[in-house]
Amino acid sequence: MITIFGTIALDTTETPFKKMEKILGGAATYSALSASFFYPTSIVGIVGKDFPKIYRDILNSRLDTKGIITDNDAKTFHYDSSFDYDLFRRKTNKTELNVIKNFEPKIPSEYAGSEYIYLANNDPHQNIQALKLFKKSKLVLCDTIDFWITNKSEQVFKMMQNVDGVVINDDEARLLTKNSNLIKCARKLIGNGTKFVVIKKGENGSILFTKNHIFPSPAYPIEDVVDPTGAGDAFAGGFLGHIARSKKINLRILREAMIYGNVMGSFVVEDFGIDKLLKIKYKEIQKRYKIYRDIVHFNGD
Amino acid sequence: MITIFGTIALDTTETPFKKMEKILGGAATYSALSASFFYPTSIVGIVGKDFPKIYRDILNSRLDTKGIITDNDAKTFHYDSSFDYDLFRRKTNKTELNVIKNFEPKIPSEYAGSEYIYLANNDPHQNIQALKLFKKSKLVLCDTIDFWITNKSEQVFKMMQNVDGVVINDDEARLLTKNSNLIKCARKLIGNGTKFVVIKKGENGSILFTKNHIFPSPAYPIEDVVDPTGAGDAFAGGFLGHIARSKKINLRILREAMIYGNVMGSFVVEDFGIDKLLKIKYKEIQKRYKIYRDIVHFNGD
Repeated sequence: MITIFGTIALDTTETPFKKMEKILGGAATYSALSASFFYPTSIVGIVGKDFPKIYRDILNSRLDTKGIITDNDAKTFHYDSSFDYDLFRRKTNKTELNVIKNFEPKIPSEYAGSEYIYLANNDPHQNIQALKLFKKSKLVLCDTIDFWITNKSEQVFKMMQNVDGVVINDDEARLLTKNSNLIKCARKLIGNGTKFVVIKKGENGSILFTKNHIFPSPAYPIEDVVDPTGAGDAFAGGFLGHIARSKKINLRILREAMIYGNVMGSFVVEDFGIDKLLKIKYKEIQKRYKIYRDIVHFNGD
Repeated sequence: MITIFGTIALDTTETPFKKMEKILGGAATYSALSASFFYPTSIVGIVGKDFPKIYRDILNSRLDTKGIITDNDAKTFHYDSSFDYDLFRRKTNKTELNVIKNFEPKIPSEYAGSEYIYLANNDPHQNIQALKLFKKSKLVLCDTIDFWITNKSEQVFKMMQNVDGVVINDDEARLLTKNSNLIKCARKLIGNGTKFVVIKKGENGSILFTKNHIFPSPAYPIEDVVDPTGAGDAFAGGFLGHIARSKKINLRILREAMIYGNVMGSFVVEDFGIDKLLKIKYKEIQKRYKIYRDIVHFNGD
C-alpha cells in the first residue's frame, strides 16, 4: 500500500478567471488522488469540524481514509492564494494552520506495513514523527514549501535526511539550499543524505537527479491552463504510484515515473482544484504517456 | 553559405562576478561564430570607428567578414545590461543604436547566392530590406527582442511573415503575441505566416513548434553559469548550422538542430562573452551532443 501523510486543506484560490472559496485541497489530497490511479493508496491527515461531508465522500470514493482524524475543536487547515494572468507564480495570501498546528501524527495499525510513503507538504517535525510509525517502508519521498523552509529549515533538512527521495519546486530548492543553480541545489540535498531529488519547474518540466545521473524532462504541453494548484502534488502522486506498482526501483523506472508525474500534473492544471482528477480514467493517463513519449522522442544518431 | 545579418555590438555586461565594458558582442557575432562550427558562415553588419581591430581580427579568423561595413562618423552599437545573482533575468541599462540607427543594408555581391540566412536581432525594417538582397535563399530564420517589439511591433510581424522560422525568447514571444501560454504564442506566429517557431527558455530549454508537431527539449544542464549573454544567439547559430550542413529540412533534422542549438548555448554561458566559443573545438560539440542524447533518452515502452 501507498500511504500519504500531509495536509488535507480547504483552499481559497483566486485566478483571473474565477475565485474559489474553501474547496477541497491540500498536498495529501492531490497526491493521494493521483497515486490512487496506479496503486492502492491511503491518506493520513487531520481535518476540523468544518470539513464538509461531501469532501469526505470524495476522498472515500478513491482512497483508504481510515487515517483521517477529525478534530472537532478546530478548523481545517486553510490556504489562501492567488495567481496572476501568467498562471505561473502563486502569491500566498494567508496560511491558517488551524488543526495542523499541534497535530501529533497517528496512523491506523494496518498502515504500519505500508511500503511506499509520501510525506507530502506539512510541518517537517510532524513528518519526521509520522515516518517513525511506518515499519516496513521500501521507499519514502517528501516535499516541502517556502512556509516551512522559512520557519523550520533545520527540521526540513532533518526530514530530508530520512527519506529516499525529495520532490521539491525549483524556487523552494533554491530557497532551501541558498543556491540559484539547480544542479548545485540537488547536489546539496543528495549530500544531505537523500538518494535522489526531483526538482519540479511547473510549465518548464522537472529534473531527476541521482548521485551520478540527471534526467531533465519537459512538461507535457498544455494549451489551456486553468488552475495550477496541486499540479506538483499530483506529479509526486503519479511518480510514487508508478514506482509502487513496478515493485522495483532503478533508473529506468525512475525515468518512467517522471513521465507519469508530468502527465498527472498536466491533467490537474486543466480544471479547477481536484476536478480533473475526478473526471479522468486510467486509459487517458496511458494515452498521454504515449503521446509524451512520441513528442520527446529523440534518437540523435 | 550561411549569411547572418544583424547587430555587431560592443557590450557592457555586469554580472555578480565581474563587470565587462565594451566587449565584443551582438546577436550576429554570437550566432555567426556558433554557426561557423557547422558550415561556412558570413556576417553582415555595421560597426563604428571605435570598433577595435582586435575584435575585427577575431571575426576574420572564423568568418567571411566582407559584409561588415564601417561607418567612420559614428560609434558602434552599444548594449549595456546587468544580471542579478540568479543569472537568469537580464536588465537592460542602455541601448545605444549609434551606427545601427540609419543603416541601409548592403551585402557583397557574392552573398546574394547564400542559401541559409539568419536575420539576427536587429531593426526589423532593416531586416526586411536585407532579406530582399538574397536571391537564392533556401531557409530564412529571424529573431527579435523586446526593444523592437515595443517600438516597431508591426514591422516585427511583417518580418516574421517573410521567414521560414522564428527563433525567439519566451518572454518576447509573450510580449509580441500578447499571450502567456507558449503554445498559443507559437500558434499565433505560425498563423502569421512562418512555418516553424523555436521558443527559447534559457535554462529551461526550448520548444520547437510546427503546425502539427511540438518538440520540447530541456537545456543541456550546466552547473557553473558565468554569463548568459549570447546563449540564445549561439543557439540560433548551431540550429541553423546543423540544418545548413544537412542540406535538407525535415522534422528529424529540425529536432537534431534543436539539440545542437542547446549544446552551443550551453558552451556560451560557461565563460564571459564570446570567450568559450573561441576555445572549444568541434569534437567537444559532438561530445556534448552525445551526452545530451543519453541524458534525455526515454524509451517508455
